[in-house]
Amino acid sequence: MASVDVPVALLGYGTVGSAVNRLLNEQADDIERATGHRLRIVKALVRDLARERGFPADGGVLTTDVGEITDDPSIAMVAEVMGGVEPAGEHVLELLRRGKHVVTANKQLVAQRGAELFDAASGAGVQLRFEASVCAAIPVIKVLRESLVVTNVHRVLGIVNGTTNFMLTEMEGGATYEEALAEAQARGFAEADPTDDVSGADAAAKMAILATVAFNSRFALSDVEVVGIDSITPLDVAAARELEMVIRLVGAARLLEGRVDVRVGPALVDRHHPLAAVEGAFNAVMLQGDAIREITLEGPGAGGVETASAVIADMASVIGTMGTGFLQNDPVWRTLPRLGRGENRSPFYFNLSVVDRPGVLARVAEALAERDVSVARLLQHQNGDRAALHVVTHETSQGALDDALAAIASMDEVREKPLPFPVVSERGIAELGWA
Amino acid sequence: MASVDVPVALLGYGTVGSAVNRLLNEQADDIERATGHRLRIVKALVRDLARERGFPADGGVLTTDVGEITDDPSIAMVAEVMGGVEPAGEHVLELLRRGKHVVTANKQLVAQRGAELFDAASGAGVQLRFEASVCAAIPVIKVLRESLVVTNVHRVLGIVNGTTNFMLTEMEGGATYEEALAEAQARGFAEADPTDDVSGADAAAKMAILATVAFNSRFALSDVEVVGIDSITPLDVAAARELEMVIRLVGAARLLEGRVDVRVGPALVDRHHPLAAVEGAFNAVMLQGDAIREITLEGPGAGGVETASAVIADMASVIGTMGTGFLQNDPVWRTLPRLGRGENRSPFYFNLSVVDRPGVLARVAEALAERDVSVARLLQHQNGDRAALHVVTHETSQGALDDALAAIASMDEVREKPLPFPVVSERGIAELGWA
Repeated sequence: MASVDVPVALLGYGTVGSAVNRLLNEQADDIERATGHRLRIVKALVRDLARERGFPADGGVLTTDVGEITDDPSIAMVAEVMGGVEPAGEHVLELLRRGKHVVTANKQLVAQRGAELFDAASGAGVQLRFEASVCAAIPVIKVLRESLVVTNVHRVLGIVNGTTNFMLTEMEGGATYEEALAEAQARGFAEADPTDDVSGADAAAKMAILATVAFNSRFALSDVEVVGIDSITPLDVAAARELEMVIRLVGAARLLEGRVDVRVGPALVDRHHPLAAVEGAFNAVMLQGDAIREITLEGPGAGGVETASAVIADMASVIGTMGTGFLQNDPVWRTLPRLGRGENRSPFYFNLSVVDRPGVLARVAEALAERDVSVARLLQHQNGDRAALHVVTHETSQGALDDALAAIASMDEVREKPLPFPVVSERGIAELGWA
Repeated sequence: MASVDVPVALLGYGTVGSAVNRLLNEQADDIERATGHRLRIVKALVRDLARERGFPADGGVLTTDVGEITDDPSIAMVAEVMGGVEPAGEHVLELLRRGKHVVTANKQLVAQRGAELFDAASGAGVQLRFEASVCAAIPVIKVLRESLVVTNVHRVLGIVNGTTNFMLTEMEGGATYEEALAEAQARGFAEADPTDDVSGADAAAKMAILATVAFNSRFALSDVEVVGIDSITPLDVAAARELEMVIRLVGAARLLEGRVDVRVGPALVDRHHPLAAVEGAFNAVMLQGDAIREITLEGPGAGGVETASAVIADMASVIGTMGTGFLQNDPVWRTLPRLGRGENRSPFYFNLSVVDRPGVLARVAEALAERDVSVARLLQHQNGDRAALHVVTHETSQGALDDALAAIASMDEVREKPLPFPVVSERGIAELGWA
């Protein structure tokens, strides 16, 4: 077996970086069997040379000077695991321009500066891979780009944020939102400031990347409509349970007649749907396309070693495809328009608290029927002098539903404007429900 | 974009072959964007030139003479989609020796003649890819070989036969075994002679391939211990439901301290386990390894277009990796010994029908305790003058359980020797239950 040392550099040597170095050392034989080469970290850019590291680097490897990497012609490949858009972006851009392949774990970088980075990579004839930037070790980028070449993927549904999924699973078990958040923080899933997770912003960045790769059109964070989970109450969770559903923060990207809709928000997922089985801090992505019906990938969507594993898989893929046409550069070759918000179609769930007075149900039903919103399931509970109505609609446009709910909210008997959740239930090429 | 025509040949032009040709035509632009090349079917080996085809081949493409493919130096790649071990095996061997890359959808061929085929491929410096041979469009081979390079996969759990999974799902809905089989046949999932599916033989061939790739040691069909689903009754299904589990035909390959166990058989799967969410004719494969905890891939495990999609993805991968070290030849580089049957460890479920007499439960419990088989859950139902006992054990060795069950079967009060099912419940790197 050929055994050539491939000198590799890291930008960043924190949790992920030191895990990359450890795996490259411990699994060197496996990597050689898979690629014919041994990969060796020769430089790693850090801010503080003195800091303690999870897996210590060899003497002379750590450096605070990016020029030691950029200017070293022997370094053929660099893994960016430092995070943050800057200075990571400038470093990566320069490395690509200098003809070095780059592998990145940085979703914000890919989501925000993807276009110019891919452009630089193409210009220099090198690869920019980013498997680790979405859902860590779940190989959704490779599967989309290399396995689903001929499948016309038209929908991506994902649970792409482990923190919120953990919290929603805790709430299913009886916890309040606050208890669920505290438990997520205690276990290290959520930061002290959990805004990025619970607002849906983290999931939105991942969905922007997935939509870009799946539909070959550029989607930025600002193209994603986002609703967080901070308004979810134990009452919502209980209502979902009664309907044999669970609440999940679902990312959904849909290609419909040449237009695209990308969104993230809480959805009711039927118990029999694969996304309902995704519990705790796990992630899952369901890809639907013509030739495959649907393929779902599930696994840990975060973690230092998991991310490092994806970084190394990308390195192996770069080596395996060096010098061929399979360059894996910019996945974007077209510009698709966005679907208007009101045009998004889905079945929806909403609940209403109404004064229990004759004729209320009839007027609610009429408000829906007038906009062609048809009711699939209805549950009514008495609650003192009020009635709680739980409504699941058949597929309808978001615009029609919004109109109907506005009309309903204006009724005297209705306490507040209901918040609709999309419903994810059907499988395969059948209408899937949301998105 | 470079636009070179790559002449490709097919062995077989049935459902899969004509779907390959159709997709290559209809998705030619997507393939060119992914590979830089246009692939064109120039020859297809058939037995009967006159037969009607799903997607007609161009004039002069169909041939009954394999020599028109073997001897044509312009053909760089061949997809084998004819099925059967012979003559497919001889054809593939000759094509590899002549320096042509081969992509195959043939699980029996890979399982039975893999060693010599990979040897021929390595000798000639060409690739032999076989994604479509296991679970059709679910890209489990690519993920195992290219994404999980550094993960030391130590367990593969799979639902790899759609027919039996459809039948078991039907039985959950109340059907008898015979009704479920009839429905599977009516829908075209099961053959008139369903033996290959219901006996577990089809699943065993796929598990042999998956174990070979995951553990890099050759496993033949005869290395797989197989139990079919033909003994499953509505009573078993009802008992599983009462325990909040479902019955699935589970393939399991495990690497334990350098030894391997590969088996296929009915198992009780906890409702919260991802494999329990696999319904109908779908397949799923769960890969567990050090760096990734677990990754599950789910999707349609059969179908002409789904299989064709995997064949074309393999072709694209061959083109992408031509001329590099990433040859993807024989995944086998070591020989691992088998784990003895009695050494297999798992939690198990069994049920017993006993004469309801004082002391019976105590003697059953004693028979288990004497072999260190510890009871995790116990349900007892009255049934006339008999009691039905449902027992779930903690993890134990199969040998200890077999001994205990033999002792229990010899008791006067026990009607027949119970048949134990492994239980699949835990997730991740925790003990997973079976296999």
